[in-house]
Amino acid sequence: MPIELEQLHHCHGGRQGVYRHRSGECGGEMQFSVYVPPHEVGDRLPVLYYLSGLTCGPDVFPIKAGAQRLASELGLVLVAPDTSPRNTGYEGATDDWDFGEGAGFYLDATEAPWSERFRMYSYVTRELPALIEEEFPVDPGRCGIFGHSMGGHGALVIGLRNRDRYRSISAFAPIVAPTQVPWGHKALPRYLGDDPDAWPRYDACNLVRQHPFDGTLLIDQGLEDPFLAEQLKPELFEAACAEANQALQLRRHAGYDHGYFFIQTFIDDHLRHHAAALGA
Amino acid sequence: MPIELEQLHHCHGGRQGVYRHRSGECGGEMQFSVYVPPHEVGDRLPVLYYLSGLTCGPDVFPIKAGAQRLASELGLVLVAPDTSPRNTGYEGATDDWDFGEGAGFYLDATEAPWSERFRMYSYVTRELPALIEEEFPVDPGRCGIFGHSMGGHGALVIGLRNRDRYRSISAFAPIVAPTQVPWGHKALPRYLGDDPDAWPRYDACNLVRQHPFDGTLLIDQGLEDPFLAEQLKPELFEAACAEANQALQLRRHAGYDHGYFFIQTFIDDHLRHHAAALGA
Repeated sequence: MPIELEQLHHCHGGRQGVYRHRSGECGGEMQFSVYVPPHEVGDRLPVLYYLSGLTCGPDVFPIKAGAQRLASELGLVLVAPDTSPRNTGYEGATDDWDFGEGAGFYLDATEAPWSERFRMYSYVTRELPALIEEEFPVDPGRCGIFGHSMGGHGALVIGLRNRDRYRSISAFAPIVAPTQVPWGHKALPRYLGDDPDAWPRYDACNLVRQHPFDGTLLIDQGLEDPFLAEQLKPELFEAACAEANQALQLRRHAGYDHGYFFIQTFIDDHLRHHAAALGA
Repeated sequence: MPIELEQLHHCHGGRQGVYRHRSGECGGEMQFSVYVPPHEVGDRLPVLYYLSGLTCGPDVFPIKAGAQRLASELGLVLVAPDTSPRNTGYEGATDDWDFGEGAGFYLDATEAPWSERFRMYSYVTRELPALIEEEFPVDPGRCGIFGHSMGGHGALVIGLRNRDRYRSISAFAPIVAPTQVPWGHKALPRYLGDDPDAWPRYDACNLVRQHPFDGTLLIDQGLEDPFLAEQLKPELFEAACAEANQALQLRRHAGYDHGYFFIQTFIDDHLRHHAAALGA
């Protein structure tokens, strides 16, 4: 059995599930959540991958984001993976909230011991979609990706590097320049080694300059986000997009912070952004 | 300062807060959450009290129910108290998930030691509304009440016994007959004493027979709710309402369970039910 069901709940006429499976890329058991909206037998629906921020498990998005109501209406499948392998036993893997377990940064680590199991880039771009396409009623030709904070970084990097796979990209309060901010300076050397030349392939500002995306990127950012000035720096991505002639809708919201009350406020706009690109 | 702010988040144009205060009724610190939708200075808005189920703190409803989006649109204030006093130190207060702390059953206990602080009925009907009316932009003449499970019991009992205060009542999967089910048989004697004559004033089936409510009661119930047959028994309330000529809209939903994925599916219908009665 490739996947095992942990929880399944009726929700807005569809099913919200949490599943586990044995991941080859991540060398152990991984969990993910899937919302399948109401549909007819034989339908193949567009699918939207959501990458979570630091610490979050795969159940946070379905519980807190309030996405199922409109996903039900639009006919979108929503998939949320975990943020890293868990229970690795690696020294230092659970000491920090912003490095190690819960903080995989959606990359393929090259440094020991992380390189053995911290392969979230390959997991999210290949292993998980193959599984989802096998087990759920999705159309592989209609995928979008979005995420929050570290997961916004993941969505931008993965979307920009896999234009053939993802037709639409958006993010809430993303880390856009990990090579230039403290969270990245902490994680990238430990996962990828001390040579900074290895880092830019996981930096959205760099990637968008290399090759813009065919479609508008949507980013929402709260102006009372405590990580805004030091870790997020959306102005860097804004400048990179301007240089690259990348279409960007960056919306700054007075008063909003970094959490899920911010996300739930703008989630519908993101779903509609993706639905338009995916023909939902 | 009568209340202290613990958290405040912008959400759908309004503010989602969690507060604490010193409660006279409950003999100690109590927390509650309030959502205030966007409004003009001087507005007095209709207010909807939500009573949570067993174990839940006041932050569960704002995080999981997905109510703020439509409350923002309708202009409804949402208030969610805790489910009991906390940190009481009473023997047995934290041994069980369905009795003691987190399980106040929205009654005024008469048995020691509970009678000292477990006064949730008076807290919810008098102390908390007085505080809310003083501190938030609400119209005391436009209150509704709803809740889930044990909180659905609380909403029905409190609404039916205080027709002058609450203009609208609804519930998700409520305990409708605590005098007849195991949860009530466990809690009522310990809070109210062994004499069963003390129990029916906290039993919605009894109360609605005594004096129907001027307005339709809305109840949603999932048919895959694991507590349906033994603890909830909506058919008892249906029969009591029929006897009393009480208007009742009891909706049974195939496949839905007892949790917040069920609640978030039908929350909008409840808000609209109350908004219609409250002139929102």
